[in-house]
Amino acid sequence: MVNEKLIPVDRQDAYGKITGKAKYVDDIKFPGMLYVQTVRIPSPHARILHIDSSEALKLKGVVKVLTAKDVFGRNHLPNDKPVLVEDVVKCTGDGVAVVVAETRSLAAKAAKLVKVDYEELPAVFTPEEALAAGAPVLHGDSNLAITHKTVKGDIAAGFLEADIILEREYATQRAMHAAIEPDGAVVVPEADGITVYCPGKGPFNVKRAVAAACGLSENKVRLIQPAIGGAFGGKDCDINAIASRAAMAAMITGRPCKMTWTREEVLLEGSKRHPFKLNYKIGAKKDGHITAIEINGLADVGAYITKSKATIWRATVEATGPYTIENVSTTIAGAFTNNVYSDAVRGFGSPQVDFASESLMSELAKELGMSPLEIRRINAYREGAITATSQKLKSVNLIECLDKLEEVFPVHEKPAAPPAGKVRGRGISCIFRGEANGAGVTTLDAAAVNIHIERDGSITVLTGIAEMGQGGSNIVLQMVSKALGVSIENLKVSPLDTAYLPDSGATVGSRGTITSGNAAVVAAEDAKKRIANVVAEDWGVSPEDLIFQDNTIFTENKEKTIRFTDAITLCYTKLPGVFGYGWWALPPVWWDFDKNSGDTYASFNYGACGAEVEIDLSSGKVEIIDVAAIHDVGRILNEPEVRAQIAGGGSMAYGFTLTEEVDIQKGQVKTLNFDGYLLPTTMDFKNFRPIPLEPKQPGINPLGVKGIGESSTATFAPAVINAIEDALGVRIRKLPANLESVFEAIQESERLGYIKEGRRNE
Amino acid sequence: MVNEKLIPVDRQDAYGKITGKAKYVDDIKFPGMLYVQTVRIPSPHARILHIDSSEALKLKGVVKVLTAKDVFGRNHLPNDKPVLVEDVVKCTGDGVAVVVAETRSLAAKAAKLVKVDYEELPAVFTPEEALAAGAPVLHGDSNLAITHKTVKGDIAAGFLEADIILEREYATQRAMHAAIEPDGAVVVPEADGITVYCPGKGPFNVKRAVAAACGLSENKVRLIQPAIGGAFGGKDCDINAIASRAAMAAMITGRPCKMTWTREEVLLEGSKRHPFKLNYKIGAKKDGHITAIEINGLADVGAYITKSKATIWRATVEATGPYTIENVSTTIAGAFTNNVYSDAVRGFGSPQVDFASESLMSELAKELGMSPLEIRRINAYREGAITATSQKLKSVNLIECLDKLEEVFPVHEKPAAPPAGKVRGRGISCIFRGEANGAGVTTLDAAAVNIHIERDGSITVLTGIAEMGQGGSNIVLQMVSKALGVSIENLKVSPLDTAYLPDSGATVGSRGTITSGNAAVVAAEDAKKRIANVVAEDWGVSPEDLIFQDNTIFTENKEKTIRFTDAITLCYTKLPGVFGYGWWALPPVWWDFDKNSGDTYASFNYGACGAEVEIDLSSGKVEIIDVAAIHDVGRILNEPEVRAQIAGGGSMAYGFTLTEEVDIQKGQVKTLNFDGYLLPTTMDFKNFRPIPLEPKQPGINPLGVKGIGESSTATFAPAVINAIEDALGVRIRKLPANLESVFEAIQESERLGYIKEGRRNE
Repeated sequence: MVNEKLIPVDRQDAYGKITGKAKYVDDIKFPGMLYVQTVRIPSPHARILHIDSSEALKLKGVVKVLTAKDVFGRNHLPNDKPVLVEDVVKCTGDGVAVVVAETRSLAAKAAKLVKVDYEELPAVFTPEEALAAGAPVLHGDSNLAITHKTVKGDIAAGFLEADIILEREYATQRAMHAAIEPDGAVVVPEADGITVYCPGKGPFNVKRAVAAACGLSENKVRLIQPAIGGAFGGKDCDINAIASRAAMAAMITGRPCKMTWTREEVLLEGSKRHPFKLNYKIGAKKDGHITAIEINGLADVGAYITKSKATIWRATVEATGPYTIENVSTTIAGAFTNNVYSDAVRGFGSPQVDFASESLMSELAKELGMSPLEIRRINAYREGAITATSQKLKSVNLIECLDKLEEVFPVHEKPAAPPAGKVRGRGISCIFRGEANGAGVTTLDAAAVNIHIERDGSITVLTGIAEMGQGGSNIVLQMVSKALGVSIENLKVSPLDTAYLPDSGATVGSRGTITSGNAAVVAAEDAKKRIANVVAEDWGVSPEDLIFQDNTIFTENKEKTIRFTDAITLCYTKLPGVFGYGWWALPPVWWDFDKNSGDTYASFNYGACGAEVEIDLSSGKVEIIDVAAIHDVGRILNEPEVRAQIAGGGSMAYGFTLTEEVDIQKGQVKTLNFDGYLLPTTMDFKNFRPIPLEPKQPGINPLGVKGIGESSTATFAPAVINAIEDALGVRIRKLPANLESVFEAIQESERLGYIKEGRRNE
Repeated sequence: MVNEKLIPVDRQDAYGKITGKAKYVDDIKFPGMLYVQTVRIPSPHARILHIDSSEALKLKGVVKVLTAKDVFGRNHLPNDKPVLVEDVVKCTGDGVAVVVAETRSLAAKAAKLVKVDYEELPAVFTPEEALAAGAPVLHGDSNLAITHKTVKGDIAAGFLEADIILEREYATQRAMHAAIEPDGAVVVPEADGITVYCPGKGPFNVKRAVAAACGLSENKVRLIQPAIGGAFGGKDCDINAIASRAAMAAMITGRPCKMTWTREEVLLEGSKRHPFKLNYKIGAKKDGHITAIEINGLADVGAYITKSKATIWRATVEATGPYTIENVSTTIAGAFTNNVYSDAVRGFGSPQVDFASESLMSELAKELGMSPLEIRRINAYREGAITATSQKLKSVNLIECLDKLEEVFPVHEKPAAPPAGKVRGRGISCIFRGEANGAGVTTLDAAAVNIHIERDGSITVLTGIAEMGQGGSNIVLQMVSKALGVSIENLKVSPLDTAYLPDSGATVGSRGTITSGNAAVVAAEDAKKRIANVVAEDWGVSPEDLIFQDNTIFTENKEKTIRFTDAITLCYTKLPGVFGYGWWALPPVWWDFDKNSGDTYASFNYGACGAEVEIDLSSGKVEIIDVAAIHDVGRILNEPEVRAQIAGGGSMAYGFTLTEEVDIQKGQVKTLNFDGYLLPTTMDFKNFRPIPLEPKQPGINPLGVKGIGESSTATFAPAVINAIEDALGVRIRKLPANLESVFEAIQESERLGYIKEGRRNE
């Protein structure tokens, strides 16, 4: 299969979304449904003294006001966030109660009438404040939530070898997922358990979280996923909280209950991307060879740990960038603060460290008077390279990415002269990124696809991997279609429903295509074998000699031929059922927490990016003239989808690089809607070139695929920031490089004489 | 497993039904849902000339009036019944149009305003009329819908050998299923296809029927089964029609559409039990040995063939009763009439022929001056017996049933003297009955059970066999619970949903426990093996040495022990998923339509029944003094359930025997509600003793079970009718033996002097 060219297929879920027939969670209504509204207090750190719901309950149509004491099960969602705060509020997003009412507006009105008496506590708002001696502590006996390390070689000796040592500090901001659809859930009480309707990247995880919060066994919580209006790494911890609150309301009232957040609530309580501060010290020879790197970082975990351990672990093991360095010491810590909590956002720790390491590489190149491409080529991972965690790499396609970059992007040429009042610059970057769950997860990284072939030859496909809008279900359909030689129109994916589907983990870590794509092939081959056996026996030929193609099964000489549908009719007279079941798991990985090394991910992908920017010197506005985003995606299954994934990740990175920031001041979220949160539009992004690279060496799984969901978010920022530096001669080391900070850089550039009279002084 | 005593378990679905939390189809509501009402005409045979819906459409809230030309796909449901009549109405139940309106009452009101012009056609109301020369023909070129035969030996020679020849005619009536819940469906249009909510015994069959009617592929029609309020062999063809009509309304309006029948509609259009006329000629030696039997029968198929072929086939192959007879000729035909159509009703052709053959056996005994038990013993099937279809039988437990009858029922004693004005009598019967689909179905008779074990050790069980209220899901839970040694409370069956579950056929032919019970064991053993391998490897023991019991896994010496839940946690670190998939199929069967013989069913079960009745001579009221219903059920999995199945079948047979009849006059259904259809109550039925017999020789499947759903409906009528004959000396050969016919028999008995002065003249 790997050597055949696959024909791209249209998105099978597009029709419903385009026509409005697709149902999102807020479209779901049940007779007698109640609405649930969270009650919050404006303090980022406070002890709750008393909750008085009497005024709220006086409103006609208000059914219940529930607090932490009404939580049936464990009032701590996975990794700490409470369903409702029992005692101490730790950020302004925390829920202290919920109002359950007949209408949404009534619930919102009543929530304001719930009177919460509380005592303000001293709070901390930055990781540095949090770790200072005498700081108020949020959890346990220290605000140090987590420290991850990698250690390799002898760092002191490495720096001694160096001809040049650079030390730089980089910082990234707090950003949000910004899905079109805010988070929400509807919970229906059933005769034996509950049914939860909610979007999310990890339906099986949410089911488990809600089961624990409700004191139910896992098989008593059924989660059905409606259409999803984007997630971008979110719709996970936040959904846990929302679904658990709606579930407790449903169980107590015995009626269906809905909670959907407003955009304000998404900003107020919803998780955000971790802000990082990263201090890099790098030593290199004059010839560009890096001899040592020391990295120290500190991330703002916010009020709860949630998935910070895993996020910071990924950042730690990838922090050097894709370079062979003999002597490495990386330490990245996370600290609790009284800010809204940080959690998974598409990229999951990679964009932060890639911004830093790739900025640093260009800084080093400049210091050494080398081309930024050359210094990368010199140090780049090659096949069999040993990472900072002492893992030996396979399927390393970085040099191919850099070759492609050199081919498609004018790395060595100067930009064309811009109009007056504008300057242009070019920058590049490259990355590596671990695929799928990695060694941070103890269960096998697996997915299942089951197919049932109906008697008319149409096919029902079951996959436990959530479709997030990225087209994951399409890949599964495509694999089954291809393997069985049946038109994709004859296939249909059943909606995600945990009561029926095998737990295939979450759509995270860019693992969707790798796991479910390979499982789909196993399932389809399983079905194919059954069918081939029946047909071959009927024909008196060997099953291996049969070809499945064009909705037909035939022998190579076409002497024998049968329509697929007729073959299925035949199979139903011989077999108990016509089906294929397939599980596929990534090879195991491991991490040694004592030695701070291990085989972190079963596989990695690689990428390179070239960016040309034009900066308006009067406003600081950065226009993207050209971005070439090259990604090693392994085998390309559906090129338009892959290009869309790269473009989607890139547009998210645009905001991360230039415009987006959630402003929190003293624990108060100041950015409360999209009017204050600048998302890029297609017009900002029109010159982006997604370039999927199908390398000579495919991914190390049967399908040969690699994951592209997240790498695409990580190369843009450093390439663009390096381009800005190229244009202005001044480096921005803190994201976002927004109008204010670019304008400041322009002023600095003019002060330094790098820019003079509205153009580069060359 | 077969030698262990199983502990009965409570019904896992009882809570929802008892508390009202279970949702039936008419409880299902969606926002914007429309109601669909069928339009019918009062003529049993008519050509439609014109349908004028203008007056109906003038009513505010009437959305559409649809006719046959609006049917998207094939306007013929499986085996002929149209979704809506195109041209010729063939019975008064036929739908000629549907009204779609905002409310149920509006739809009903508007249906009366649809004006149908039609031309009356000559009609036939009995099979005899239908087959008479010159009769108007309903389908094709003859009203002879089907003729089935069995032929064995030389019938003429057999009668020549006989010392005595009896010839008798028996007749059975038209009866109904009488489920508490009338039939209905809700159909929701989806982005890609439709979702159908409806109860039914064959959800996968209904899905296929609706798909064909809607012109959709099978995977585009998803059927979800709500709780079901009884079926008794129904909720099948009728549901096909209802769901197809609601589906066309949903597809045309783009809105959810509901059609639920009133009781009147169930009587008017719903399928009924086939009325049979059966002519038996039997020859026997003086010693009781039967030498020949010739059976000719004619059934009223009604207006459409639906499942009459299969029903009449079963009646034909079972018509001799469970006796070894060398010379057999059976011919049973079915004829189309302009009556509402006949179809599957619990028992499916068996109760009719068993009533006849077992009445005949007692008549023969009386003629020969033998005890009715003795004559049955002489001729009864024994292990290896050859049936009328030349099938060699295995696992024949008839003699054990007769032994048990003799043990528990005073076959040889006279009844106690009744009060004055009453007489008592005793009668017996015995039967054999083929299990599962039989040779009439071309696909393998199989079912699948899949189980997913959640990370907390709770278990989700998937079964494609519909729960009809009989407890079929409970059996599956019980098998999985037993095999894995896990409490049944930790298991949950997911609702039946064709979008996820493997097509396991219908809950018909008493095949539920045989197929899904055995599949459940296969699935559980599959999961057990996976778990055992992981645990055994961890312990360094052999997987075969592990015992699964009491939610624990341990070695025989209990040196090593682990809680089941902890074992699952361990498994999740080693396996891609923890699951078990199981398919199980009955051995193949066959039928030779040329030779009229074959291996009709993979297995058979046996039963015997003793009845004592007391007849009030002034009213004809028959009181059941005692009924002992003994059934060979193979291995007993859950004794209370088996007893309930026998009792349930018996109570249905009570109505069939004594009270129930749907009165149709000239094609007009006169019985239009339960006020005119006399169902037995628990008070009528209080003296019924269900006696499941676990025979020495279990069923010929791994679990050793036999099906009891339908045999239980077949022994009651002949035993009670034989008892009436014993009491009155007069035989009733037409069912039901209602007050009128018993009173007539009393008068005849008095005329014959058998009863004199209010008591038996002995």
